[in-house]
Amino acid sequence: MTGRVVVLTGGVGGAKLVLGLAHLIAPEAITAIVNTGDDFRHLGLAISPDIDTLLYTLSGKANGAQGWGREGETWQFMDALRSLGGEDWFNLGDGDLALHIERSAALARGETLSAITRRFGEAWGVRTRMLPMSDDPVATHLATDIGDLPFQRYFVEHRCAPAVGAIRFDGADGASPAPGVIEAIRDPATRAILIAPSNPYLSVDPILAVPGIRRALEAAEAPIVAVSPIVGGKAVKGPTAKLMAELGVAPTPAAVAAHYAGILDGLLVDERDATIDLVIPYDRADTLMTTLDDRVRVAHAALALAERLAR
Amino acid sequence: MTGRVVVLTGGVGGAKLVLGLAHLIAPEAITAIVNTGDDFRHLGLAISPDIDTLLYTLSGKANGAQGWGREGETWQFMDALRSLGGEDWFNLGDGDLALHIERSAALARGETLSAITRRFGEAWGVRTRMLPMSDDPVATHLATDIGDLPFQRYFVEHRCAPAVGAIRFDGADGASPAPGVIEAIRDPATRAILIAPSNPYLSVDPILAVPGIRRALEAAEAPIVAVSPIVGGKAVKGPTAKLMAELGVAPTPAAVAAHYAGILDGLLVDERDATIDLVIPYDRADTLMTTLDDRVRVAHAALALAERLAR
Repeated sequence: MTGRVVVLTGGVGGAKLVLGLAHLIAPEAITAIVNTGDDFRHLGLAISPDIDTLLYTLSGKANGAQGWGREGETWQFMDALRSLGGEDWFNLGDGDLALHIERSAALARGETLSAITRRFGEAWGVRTRMLPMSDDPVATHLATDIGDLPFQRYFVEHRCAPAVGAIRFDGADGASPAPGVIEAIRDPATRAILIAPSNPYLSVDPILAVPGIRRALEAAEAPIVAVSPIVGGKAVKGPTAKLMAELGVAPTPAAVAAHYAGILDGLLVDERDATIDLVIPYDRADTLMTTLDDRVRVAHAALALAERLAR
Repeated sequence: MTGRVVVLTGGVGGAKLVLGLAHLIAPEAITAIVNTGDDFRHLGLAISPDIDTLLYTLSGKANGAQGWGREGETWQFMDALRSLGGEDWFNLGDGDLALHIERSAALARGETLSAITRRFGEAWGVRTRMLPMSDDPVATHLATDIGDLPFQRYFVEHRCAPAVGAIRFDGADGASPAPGVIEAIRDPATRAILIAPSNPYLSVDPILAVPGIRRALEAAEAPIVAVSPIVGGKAVKGPTAKLMAELGVAPTPAAVAAHYAGILDGLLVDERDATIDLVIPYDRADTLMTTLDDRVRVAHAALALAERLAR
């Protein structure tokens, strides 16, 4: 397949797919549009977890075992912070701090998140184009049975335990797509738009909530294919299936397709899952991405489905 | 000697004297008034080098070899920052970052530098009272042969190499002494006020430049004794002697006494130095502070001189 590929992506699962893609086609031909609804300020620092996961993954610096953070990370900062009685519910590794401190300083100087992200990518030799969904702050909040929680409080501090009733994206209404986002979706050279197997509600919906992005996807020439985040009726990682249950949705490929109704042309379904009620074109594959080969295989299957739909 | 002792102090040399004192009298009876003219913002973080040196020294966490920073410090952050192309002229250790990040976050919440300093001291079991000279920002700048330099650019980035023509303390005119500073100087229970062997021009003058502090010292009941920062015609550490030469002052005890004229009652002179032209009371001692015993000895000699002058 020639041409460019756009991927809407969240954290760990999305980064795996993008890494697989980057081994399949020229990294320069890939544009990753990254969720920033998880971004938050912590101890005054601007933290962009999904951008950083992608950055670590694509630069080969990611912690292979956990999928996020740096390989060989150390924790002297956290030890010292704890000794001062500082807030320690969110772990910040010593090396990881460089991203947050340098990003915070650059934002304070007026640099945009997209410019900073591009600069970090260049510094670490990442050839894939990484775009935050927006340069404006958007903050995912969850209405839960223990009250309103900003995303990281829900995800990290409470380990996704609270039951979720509703999700909102503060600031999304007034946010603009980052420079290049709409252009990449509309680019006639774009042959496929993939939605990574990230959490549809927490990682992809914030991207779709930025005014203009959904409409651009609806109007896109290129076929839009999602990789189902459901594997054998469960989420590979994170709270997707639990969240779907709490929102009253069965954890099935059909539910994923219904969630993306209006923008989705095809779904790559895991071979373990039934496709009952699935009314859009689909292919089946083993979508578990444990090894690099797995990632390349899943990326290949998603692209093949897009290619079939483009005919 | 009973009663309280106040010490005006800068960085490494001053912290040594305070540590010696704290082994001689109850730490709770000591109030250290600390230079904050070296404080600066770096990468958005509020850094208070002299307060931190004192904090590390008194909590037993200081790097014994270099006298500042943490023992067993690691440098993952600096490595990562460098890999991103960040500003790397000022070293920030992984553990050390906890002080700067927690302080910056607290300042942003509206906590004062003195409240933060007290909290850090309590967290680390420091019983000596540590007061910044002011809660208002004061910034030491040097007019040099390569232009105007903020203190840390001169001291760290340029390693004190530029020739200094003049020194100014931006913000000092509008600064107020931190709560407790004037009270400690005036306190009838204060039996001695010591000026640590810190750089008179760079570490002690900023303290004296805060309106109200010099006047309180002039009016103080307690005898004021300085420990000469000159040892055998040189400075033990740092640019004191070089700076005095550039400012056209001979590096002698008499010049130190002249510099503190109007507030000084006595000078503790190193036994290697001549006391020609020294017109105020003095004692002589080996003022080099290499071991803890040295520090206790120098503190003892300074207190003994103060006691003699109080009679």
